[in-house]
This record gives sequence, structure tokens and C-alpha cells, in this order.
Amino acid sequence: MSTNKSGIGRREFLTSIGKAVGGSAMLRATVAMGLGTTAASCGSASATASPNVVVPPPPSSGLLSPRPGDWPAGIGNGRSVVILGAGIAGMSAALEMTRLGYACTILEARATAGGRVRTLRSGDTLDEIDSTQTCQFDIDDDLYFNAGPSRIAHHHEFLLGYCREFGVQLETFTNDNRGAWLHSPAAFSGQPQVARRIIADTRGGIAELLSTAVNQNALDGELTATDKINLLAMLQQYGDLNASNRYAGTSRAGFPGQQNAGSRQRGDLLTPRELQQLISDFFWELRLSFSQGFEQQPVMLQPVGGMDRIVEAFEAQVANDIIYQAIVTEIRKTGTGARIVYSNSAGSLATIDADYCIATIPAPVLANIANDFSAAHQAEISGFQYSSAVRIAFQSPRFWEREHNIYGGITWTEQDITQIWYPNYGFHKPDGIILSAYVFGGTAGDAFSNMAPQTRLDTALQQGSSVHPQLAGQAQHGISVAWQKVPFQRGAWGISNPSVLLTADDSIFFAGEHLSILQGWQEGAILSAYAAIDGIVDRDLAP
Amino acid sequence: MSTNKSGIGRREFLTSIGKAVGGSAMLRATVAMGLGTTAASCGSASATASPNVVVPPPPSSGLLSPRPGDWPAGIGNGRSVVILGAGIAGMSAALEMTRLGYACTILEARATAGGRVRTLRSGDTLDEIDSTQTCQFDIDDDLYFNAGPSRIAHHHEFLLGYCREFGVQLETFTNDNRGAWLHSPAAFSGQPQVARRIIADTRGGIAELLSTAVNQNALDGELTATDKINLLAMLQQYGDLNASNRYAGTSRAGFPGQQNAGSRQRGDLLTPRELQQLISDFFWELRLSFSQGFEQQPVMLQPVGGMDRIVEAFEAQVANDIIYQAIVTEIRKTGTGARIVYSNSAGSLATIDADYCIATIPAPVLANIANDFSAAHQAEISGFQYSSAVRIAFQSPRFWEREHNIYGGITWTEQDITQIWYPNYGFHKPDGIILSAYVFGGTAGDAFSNMAPQTRLDTALQQGSSVHPQLAGQAQHGISVAWQKVPFQRGAWGISNPSVLLTADDSIFFAGEHLSILQGWQEGAILSAYAAIDGIVDRDLAP
Repeated sequence: MSTNKSGIGRREFLTSIGKAVGGSAMLRATVAMGLGTTAASCGSASATASPNVVVPPPPSSGLLSPRPGDWPAGIGNGRSVVILGAGIAGMSAALEMTRLGYACTILEARATAGGRVRTLRSGDTLDEIDSTQTCQFDIDDDLYFNAGPSRIAHHHEFLLGYCREFGVQLETFTNDNRGAWLHSPAAFSGQPQVARRIIADTRGGIAELLSTAVNQNALDGELTATDKINLLAMLQQYGDLNASNRYAGTSRAGFPGQQNAGSRQRGDLLTPRELQQLISDFFWELRLSFSQGFEQQPVMLQPVGGMDRIVEAFEAQVANDIIYQAIVTEIRKTGTGARIVYSNSAGSLATIDADYCIATIPAPVLANIANDFSAAHQAEISGFQYSSAVRIAFQSPRFWEREHNIYGGITWTEQDITQIWYPNYGFHKPDGIILSAYVFGGTAGDAFSNMAPQTRLDTALQQGSSVHPQLAGQAQHGISVAWQKVPFQRGAWGISNPSVLLTADDSIFFAGEHLSILQGWQEGAILSAYAAIDGIVDRDLAP
Repeated sequence: MSTNKSGIGRREFLTSIGKAVGGSAMLRATVAMGLGTTAASCGSASATASPNVVVPPPPSSGLLSPRPGDWPAGIGNGRSVVILGAGIAGMSAALEMTRLGYACTILEARATAGGRVRTLRSGDTLDEIDSTQTCQFDIDDDLYFNAGPSRIAHHHEFLLGYCREFGVQLETFTNDNRGAWLHSPAAFSGQPQVARRIIADTRGGIAELLSTAVNQNALDGELTATDKINLLAMLQQYGDLNASNRYAGTSRAGFPGQQNAGSRQRGDLLTPRELQQLISDFFWELRLSFSQGFEQQPVMLQPVGGMDRIVEAFEAQVANDIIYQAIVTEIRKTGTGARIVYSNSAGSLATIDADYCIATIPAPVLANIANDFSAAHQAEISGFQYSSAVRIAFQSPRFWEREHNIYGGITWTEQDITQIWYPNYGFHKPDGIILSAYVFGGTAGDAFSNMAPQTRLDTALQQGSSVHPQLAGQAQHGISVAWQKVPFQRGAWGISNPSVLLTADDSIFFAGEHLSILQGWQEGAILSAYAAIDGIVDRDLAP
């Protein structure tokens, strides 16, 4: 079994976030938040862990999280709310509460909205706490880098509903391309393997072994005579076994000497990789299960032109409610509501009072703002853990298309850089933006976060060149983001199990992706906003 | 095992086309044509059959099919060729031969180029031998219907190379969407199953059974103690088994009561479908293997705006060489070349002489043209079998997106309509074009071909409504194509094994998708053109 550090780190991390949120007192809250047994964060490896920890279903089997339409029209008339943060959670909260009649004000620390939903293009700057980078990409509609969320699952119904409502044009995102590669320095002489070959050989190996067991009558306790016949036929198809139920290679794996170009000589098949080798390193197994996860579908969606098209669309709805460059310095309870003190764009302190506050500020930032929180709330905020995530992107001629017939998708490597993403758009243009590293969690995530930007680029190119030697000579205009070091964020996504923060502290409610079942996903941010709205509406409905 | 007629029909058909092309005399020709052991036609089910019939590799292991660059510059100067048919085979032949100096003339029976590569839009007419339909779709860039080829594999390097050269904009085509459905009237009370659930449960069932066999020491002859440990760990991941190596459901399958909407209550898991049921009907097995095939990748490519963008791009290159509405009536040998007699656009007979002829006319049409072919060539032409294929498309509000979160991809049903395709473009627009039936081969293919157009529409809606009840009320502007009945085509793609036609008959060469390893694919048409060019160049190089 692999002892790769970052791999194990991710596994442990995933197990931890997969834990059920327990406690009967929390049940209503967890159900309202959509929190259940199988939280899945946006780190790509999360899909590989889905621990079967099952809590009892809630009493009402039809119980769903709150959603627009649940709340009475006009319930907010004459009431006010101040929302901290103009990310997806804050803007969706403001949008829906404005529709209910609440007077909404959003305080946003930066000069632009969107939070971690950021798309970098030519000339954009990326501030970290100890560095500033400027994006040097050429100017082109297809030369952009989604530094934060980059994909949308087809079942993220609320986010997709807003895209429909706002007219945000979508296109498919290739999350699992079998023409992309798997690479382990320790296996196959370090040569990258086209994913389909590993997939086909694994299926073949499994099918052959199970067929052998069936034919040895080893499973007669489990299978009837008819089952056995059916299963053998099925396995032949599943693994592409020959008439003797043996796996002797398959066209599914591709053909010799051609890598990803397939139209020509097909006189023989690739020699199968031994199952023994494929199971000896957990790397192969994880990658085979990656796109099985509910959040990580093989095909996903993305806005045409960059994820921040969604931000722009939300912003167009609520821009009048946003105060930009408003850095919150105090969060206070007044007895009848909340009072927020903030530093405004002129550098002066200002104060705003409201009946309610929804704080979507990420916990690592919120923990350092003066406040009147209860001890329990303050403790959970202070202890809330976030994943690291570092992404490193370069502009490069599209050698992956021209030389390897890779059109989008992800190559996995067992090196720290973890993933290489190819653009799913602008095919055949001269250049594209290649995400040459996506490192999250574990010691590797910390190490990359702590590197100076230039060191990140150098390391990404050094490791990436063992997968794509072309990178060293062709990649240019590199830029990176380490979310742990980005002001007003200080982390990529929440990984602690929320508990106290799912309940309001006096008139202060909490929201943000970290307080949802979908940590790290935009859909989670929206779910958390709906839960906060629901809590406020409940108050206003109370006799 | 299912005895579904059309299913079995497809299986037999696929086995037949999977046969190796044998005979040592044919070896050079088959290799030159790229013909080998694993022909794969464009019918979606073809990917499910990849018989492991392996012929010995050719003597030279590096032997590839011919390609541009293989032929000496200027070899065609002063020589002429007449090409019959302005489909992809004919136009790619003309393009490359013009570059070599040959004087090329293409005779095209229709008033437009492209052959079976057709995209229907508002106002277009579709002629069959006994009917004419007019496309009634509304006018919109995203309301089109690819009546012929619809997808491109990433390894179809020559076709993609032309797209790059011509600037044909590409986007992804979702061939396998796990949020789409599988439907058998005989299973699960006829309720469609979200594909991911069947996939997850099958993996779980297989992994549990194999784990059981391993734990019963049934495979100790095959596995070392270390292998067993590794395999059990791997299977846990592969099937998402619990700590006891049992499959008890998985979040990968989705969640109860939500079908394709997934963000809310996740308190429990779906009850697994019994493996026993899933292996009792070959339908489920076939569909699980569909996108494993080398030609049928889960994610493929398509031109933005319709497949005929490729036709337009080719046509822009060779338009000056094309004589439209030129219906060939005689193909003659002159001793020094070929003489073609054709009916021109004015209805008069005309004659053209050339040093060579390349006949890309589909065999069912070619068989009825007066000619001087050898008996062997004539016999193979007359006996060449083609698959049927019927496609039926409607304009409809996008209920599949709005109500079911299906964004592109294919739903499979065990009914004759076989497949339902959702558009992979124009997401969230009010309407889209849904391909509500794709029937190919077997008795079902013949039956649908022989229906009057209105009957096809009625039948597609009747069967389709058992999958999507919305179709009955919302689908409109239906149009169908039955390639067997389209003039100058009379079939969807060749399924016989070519033999004699791989060699020239005097100065007459043959090309077309049916004479390639990739029957039914545009890439195959190009490969066949290259093989014909290679044969002609060989003649001109001979001392």
C-alpha cells in the first residue's frame, strides 16, 4: 500500500469530514442545513471517500432543507439585516431576503464581490498576505484561470437555478477524461499511463478473478446456478473477457504504439497491466474511483468564460446593497439586533445597526474580529479547520491537444502537484491555460502554501515536467494562489463538522460553505444562506 | 438473459462486424487501410462488443496507415482524378490530391456536399425515396439536429487535424452522463433508473462477491497473502464497501427521494439494487460497458453549431472542384483511365475522362450504376451490407434540465427507440432538440425505416413517453431520418468486411467509411481516402 504522504493525508482528511453530525438536539438543525452523513468537499479526492456512516433518517421522511418559496411574502417588511461578506452565501442571502422585504446591506472587505469565486485574467492582481502577483496571460477570452471553484455538479440545483434565472451561459466541464493520464514515479518506469488502460485492465482483472471463483464453485453459497450463468456472462462483458473467461487485453485500453491516437494499425492489443501491480499502490485505486463520487461526476458544468460570470450575475442583482472595501472590525449585540463597526473605503470607522446579522466571513478571519459572541460560538469559530489549497496555472501552447490528443480533463500524478488540468474550452487555439498543480490538504498543501510564488512555479514545472516534459520549455506567465494566505479568506474550504454555528447567537446568524453539507462548493454556500434565512424568518413568524 | 429482439439483433450484428479481416494476401491491404481486428462502427452499442479475435501483428511493427506527408510533392502534376461523391471521403481525397498536383473533379449527386454528414435546421428538407419532410424547428443557433455523425473521438486524429487546420470550433459532447437514465419496461416497475445508481450498485455487488471469495480463501491459488490484503482494500474502494467488506449502499448512487437533485436531505442511502437482478437482463450489462469502448468515450467532441460545420469547412477548400447535381450513370474503363457519364444539373448527360477514379459512392447505390467493374468487385459491391439507422428528433421545452437535472448525454431504454439524446449545448435555453429515438440495426431498425414519417414520430412519442411522460405534451416539430431510404445513401454505414474493394479495379479505386476500420465514422472515411491516394501514388511512382 502506498505510504505517499499527501495521499494518506487526504484519506485521513476525507474520513474526518465524512463523519456524521450527531446528536438529537442537532437533528433539526442538521436537516435544515442539509447536513447528513456524507459531506463531500470540493477537493477532487473527496469523491473517493464515502464512508457508510448512516444516521437514522429524520422523523419526517419528506423533510428537505429550506428553499425560496418556503417563506411568506413580505415577512421582512420593515426589518433590516446586515450581511458580512459578498461571496455566494452573502449575495444569495441578500437576494432572497430583499425579495422577502428585508432591507439588506452587505459589507464586503474587498473592492469586488465573489469571495473565493475568482477568475484571473490578463492584468488581474492576486494578493496574498506576503506577496502580490499580477496575471501575465495574453488577452484572450479563453485565457483565464479559475482560482477557486471551477465546476458545478448537475444536481447543484439552486446554483443552476440562479444560472438559469440570470442567463449565465453554461458549457460542459470534463472532469474525467480517459484520454488523460495517471502517473506514478514509482510505477511503469515513471511513464504516464493513459487512464483508459488502467481502467480497462482493472475491470478485466477483477472480472477474471471473480469468474475464476465462480467457476471453482467458491460462491455457491451466494449464487444459484442461474445466477452463476448470468454472472459469468455479465463479467465477460464487464471486463471484456475471452471465451475462456480470461482477460487477455482489450481494445478498450487503446492500441500499442499509439498512445492517444487511435485510427491506424490495430493488429494487436496492449499487454494487460497485472492486477497485482495495480492493487499494490493505492494511487491507482483512488483515481479509479474519483469520478464515482456523487459530487465529482465524470461530466460537470462550468460558465462559459470563467466562474466569475456567476459572481457578476449575482452582483448585478444586489450591487446596490453592497458596501465595498468595508472591513469589519467589531460585531456587537445591541439587545434588539446587531451593530457592526467597519473600516470604510476612506479608512474611517463606520457603524451600521440592523435587526439581524448574517456573518458569512470565513472562520479563520472571523475568529480575529472583536465580537460579542457566546463562548461556545467563539470556541467553534476559533477551532474551525480549513483545508489548504494551492493552484498553479500557466499559459502554454496546447501541446496536450496537438501531441497527445488530450481535450480537457485531469491527469493525476502521485507527486505533490497531484493534478494537472487541461482547459475544457478554446480547443485548438494556439495557447491555453493549463492548471499544472492542484494541491490540497496534508503536508503538501502546507508546503506549497508556504512557498514564495516563484518557488511554487518552479516546483510545479519541475514536477510537472516528469509528466509533460514540454512544460519546462513552453509554459509561461505562471501564477498561483494559496488560499490559506489570501486576505479575508485564509483557507480554501471548511473541513470541521459545524455544530454550534448552525444555531444563531442572539440576532447573529452564520452562513458560508463551511456550514453546509457541501463544504467547498458554491451550492453549499447557497444552502447555508437559505438555512440562515429560515432561522430569521422563523423568528419573525414567532408570536 | 434478455430475449429482447432488438438487443439480440444488435449483439449479433456487432459480433459480425467485429470479425477479423483474414487472409495473408489481404494483409498489406488491411494494414494499409488501418483494418485490423477490432472494427467499431458508429452505432452506440458497438462499443460493447470488442471480441478478442487477434490476428498476428503485421511484419513491420511500425507499420501505419498512409497519411499526408507520405507522398512526394508534385507526384500528381499532369494527372487527373475524378472523385465520385462529395462526402468526407471524397472531399478529403480531393483536398490532399490537389495538394499533390492532381487535377481533381468531384461529382456530387446532390446540390450540397457532405453526404451523410447532415445537420437539419429550420426550413431544411429531408428527402427519402417516398417522402419529403421539412424541418419545422424554430430559428435558433442551438435548435439543430445532426441527422448523421454527431460525435468525434479525441483520437480521431485526422478529422481533428482538419478541424484545427480549418478553424472549426469544437466543444465537448457528453456521451455518457451518469445523471441520465436506464429504462427497461420489465424491470423496477418500468421506472427509469438514474445511471449512476445502476453503476454504483453493480460495482458494489461485484466488489462484495469478489471480497467474499477472497475471504473464503477461494482464490489462494491466484493470490499471495499480500495480494489478498491489497485486493480487499482495493475492492473496498472500488465498490465502496463497508468495513465488513459488504456493500450496503453508497452515496455514489445518489440519495432517496431526490432523483437527480442532490443538495438536501442526506440522512440515508438508497437501497442497493440486487446484483442478481442486474445480471438477469443483459440490457444493464451492455449499458454499463457502453462508454468503455475505444470509439465511445464518455466525453467526446462536436463542432459548435452542428456537424455540418466540418462539411462547410471542407467545401470551402474544394468547392471549385465540385460539380453538384451530377448523378453518375456509368463508370467505365478506357484502358488508360476512367470515363464517367453523369446526368448534370440541366438533366443532360455529360462525360468526364480522368487518369483515375475514386468511387466513394455507398455500395447500395454504386451497385445500381452501369459499370465495367470486374466480377469480383461487382459481387462485393452488390453484397455489401449496410446497417439501418433511424433518428427522430423533436423540439421541446427543456424539461430534462429543469425537472430532472439532465444536462446532455444519453438515456437508454430497452424499447425499440433504444436511445434518447439530450442536447449538449444551449443549456437553460427555453427549448432544445431532443433526439427521442436512435434505432439502428436489427428488426427494429428495419421497422422504423419502413414506417411513414408521421408513424415514426407517433411511435417515438408513444415509447418515449414511458420514459419521459412530458414528451407527449411538449415535443413538437418532429422530424426523422431513415438512412436506408435516403437517396444516394441507402444505408447508414457499411457492416460487411471489405476485401476485394480494398484493391483497385484497373484505374478505379474505392473509398468511403465502409472500406475502413472505422465503419460509420468520419475518421474512417478519411482513412479510406488516404488508402486510395496511396494506391494511386504507388502507381505513379512505379517505374
